Formats: sequence, structure tokens, C-alpha cells
Amino acid sequence: MTPNLFTIPEPDGTGEHVTPLASGKGFRIERIVSRGDVTPAGSWYDQDEDEWVVVLQGRGIVENDRGERTVLEVGDTLFLPAHLRHRVVETSRTPPCIWLAVHGELPGPGY
Amino acid sequence: MTPNLFTIPEPDGTGEHVTPLASGKGFRIERIVSRGDVTPAGSWYDQDEDEWVVVLQGRGIVENDRGERTVLEVGDTLFLPAHLRHRVVETSRTPPCIWLAVHGELPGPGY
Repeated sequence: MTPNLFTIPEPDGTGEHVTPLASGKGFRIERIVSRGDVTPAGSWYDQDEDEWVVVLQGRGIVENDRGERTVLEVGDTLFLPAHLRHRVVETSRTPPCIWLAVHGELPGPGY
Repeated sequence: MTPNLFTIPEPDGTGEHVTPLASGKGFRIERIVSRGDVTPAGSWYDQDEDEWVVVLQGRGIVENDRGERTVLEVGDTLFLPAHLRHRVVETSRTPPCIWLAVHGELPGPGY
């Protein structure tokens, strides 16, 4: 059984903590704990797979290259279609921001 | 934007409320609000896709046909591989049990 989503690692100065939670046929799920961590200036995520996120604790802000900015409080969700360039521009430090992220997995030879 | 996961419908006597949240290539995500609802006696879920669930409010208990019983409190998660027969045997009523469920989607002609 994976750890409870609200049992989070102590800060250790290394930035975000990413914990893989599950990997099924079609998807991969991880928990991300951020404490003020953001995407480095000038960088964007540009992913081959669809992604969906929810904030479970704290607060996070995501922007995309269309100029849209989404503030996510606890329980707020966001769908990020493949190749929508996006970045995290703010995360809360107290309390830490807990994200749950679902990534689509493109079918490989196993399908 | 989908509604906040903690904004739930009023009880209306019709049983569980299932709200589709997102559908990406490889996965489908829904929120399920249960108030004491359980899988009918003698029935099992037997699904072609992998599933992953987390309880976000309240409490739920799932059992499988291997005799394993998992109690899920807030933040607890469970992976249900395809064709593991399972059923929900208990959900809290106060507060209502809020589940987040991720279903794998088998590739169709669009892949």
C-alpha cells in the first residue's frame, strides 16, 4: 500500500519531492510536494501525454503559453492536454503544496 | 474548469453521485460521492481496465475476492488491477465519502 497522501517528507533542501503512487495500463500517478518550488524562469513543460492535476493541500498557480493562469486551491483541478506548454509559477510553502498528478501513458509494445 | 472536488451535490435519495472530471488519452477520472452506499450483496466489480482510487473525505472499505479488506481513510489509496473482483462494503455517511477514481482506458481505434 502506498503511503497516505498527506504523510509527506520533511524538507531537505532538494526541492520538490515526487512519489510514484501507481502505474496502470494507460496511466501513471504521482504525488508532488512543493514548498515554494516553481518551474525555472523561461522553462516550460511540453509533454507528449495528457496530464490532470489536483491540489490536495496548500495552493499552486499554473500558467500556459496562451497566457492563461489558473489558481488552484484545495480540491481544484486542471487538465493539461498533451503539448500545451505550461509552467508552475507559484506554490505555497506553509502549508506545503500537495499535488496529485495523473499522466496518460502512450501505448507501447505491450499493448 | 470542473467543480471543486469538495463541492458535492445534496443528497437526493438516488444513491451515489458520479461526476466525470477529465478524460485523457489513457485515462478517465471521476469523483464519486457515497453516503453509506455499498456494492449490492453478491455483486462484484470485474473490470477490463486498471483502476486507482483515493478517499478524499470520509471513509470507505473495499474487499476483493481473495478475502483482502482495505480500510481507506482520508488520503489512503488503492490500486485495483484489471479483473481483480472487488466490492465496496462500507462508506461513511457523515461526512459523505468522496472518492477520486482513475480508470485506465484501453486503446481504441484512435490510437
